[in-house]
Amino acid sequence: EILQRIQEFFSATYSLHQEAGESAGLLAGKRVLLTAGPTREAIDPVRYLSNHSSGKMGFALAAAAAKEGADVTLVAGPCELTTPAGVTRVDVVSAQDMHSAVMANLAGQDIFIGCAAVADFRPMNIAEQKMKKQDNQNEMQISLIKNPDILASVAQQEGAPFCVGFAAETENVEAYARKKLAQKGIQLIIANDVSQADVGFNSENNAVIAISASATQHFTINSKTEIANQLIALISSELKT
Amino acid sequence: EILQRIQEFFSATYSLHQEAGESAGLLAGKRVLLTAGPTREAIDPVRYLSNHSSGKMGFALAAAAAKEGADVTLVAGPCELTTPAGVTRVDVVSAQDMHSAVMANLAGQDIFIGCAAVADFRPMNIAEQKMKKQDNQNEMQISLIKNPDILASVAQQEGAPFCVGFAAETENVEAYARKKLAQKGIQLIIANDVSQADVGFNSENNAVIAISASATQHFTINSKTEIANQLIALISSELKT
Repeated sequence: EILQRIQEFFSATYSLHQEAGESAGLLAGKRVLLTAGPTREAIDPVRYLSNHSSGKMGFALAAAAAKEGADVTLVAGPCELTTPAGVTRVDVVSAQDMHSAVMANLAGQDIFIGCAAVADFRPMNIAEQKMKKQDNQNEMQISLIKNPDILASVAQQEGAPFCVGFAAETENVEAYARKKLAQKGIQLIIANDVSQADVGFNSENNAVIAISASATQHFTINSKTEIANQLIALISSELKT
Repeated sequence: EILQRIQEFFSATYSLHQEAGESAGLLAGKRVLLTAGPTREAIDPVRYLSNHSSGKMGFALAAAAAKEGADVTLVAGPCELTTPAGVTRVDVVSAQDMHSAVMANLAGQDIFIGCAAVADFRPMNIAEQKMKKQDNQNEMQISLIKNPDILASVAQQEGAPFCVGFAAETENVEAYARKKLAQKGIQLIIANDVSQADVGFNSENNAVIAISASATQHFTINSKTEIANQLIALISSELKT
């Protein structure tokens, strides 16, 4: 609650500055669309597949972009985080929902940041009623089918925005990230090693590598808020070159 | 925060009453072991299977039992709820962890309440590294294996406590619950229909049917706190007969 009041105070102060024209921010006049959090893929009415993304990094990026004057839309998977001041939030559950919400909000965006940990696969069939185990059933199979690739879909659009992806890996982090950059046809990829306990999914901190076609930049361990500020500054400078 | 202070005030008041010997509670001198919340079954370091249990009903039961003077141990799956005053909490993630924690805390318990939504199945193999999708892979299979049945394991112990199970169903609620009561060899089963939006997993309210070998009792829609008080009163009276 105290944190929220401090945020409100600063965003109010910031709005005053903006109105006074003192500082319009690095992303003034730009429109930014982000995704954050995990997705949940229903198996039946009570069971689902998901992942450990907390949404904190995506929400920090949305806050940082708004602070720099951008018009920010945040498509969020299931996570109980407070919407940053000045950010328009669209809540979704599954990867298909997220894909639809992104496509519906894509027109006129300058920057797309795909920070959500989107499930690569979803159950092929969603049972309408809770699946009952049979009395002597000791094993079970779930058949999965590929979800739409949101980042690649956005990057392939005509007049696509500047596209930033994330790669959360547990091994060969930089190599996998470079491959993803090329395959998806995006401008920048932010890679992190989620196998380290002190950074990544459920931590307040992060440490990332930003990789573009021409450069690699390391951001050492810091709060997600600070990493978000650094990444928004990087994105705004890449956007201008 | 206000709610927490009110709770603290009442539990402090209650302790004073207890010390003064004014009221020892319906479960004074009894030991109660509960499970609550979902379990998470790892697929790889970032992905998991889970379910929509919020843990609210189990936490409300733990609070109600403690209020009635019981010595309460609560084995909780992943849920961000405040531990009720006077309750010993053991946090777990998977069904196997929950089974171990229950067995380790079972000695000397008078009542066991299995309120957790334990995953029936877990992935047969947990990948040590994040599973990578192949470039042209459109489908995937996950093989699952049965988890230990915590409620049946407890009920089968020699000198087992009074055992209470929960049945969260989306159809044929009462019939499935009666079958579960008999199969698991427990004394009481609390059934609810989680397909109704106004009760069940993510709601503050619940409506349940309590079924024993000899009786069926309907508890109409009410806050989970009030339903918990009613169920603890029922359990304490069943325990004495």
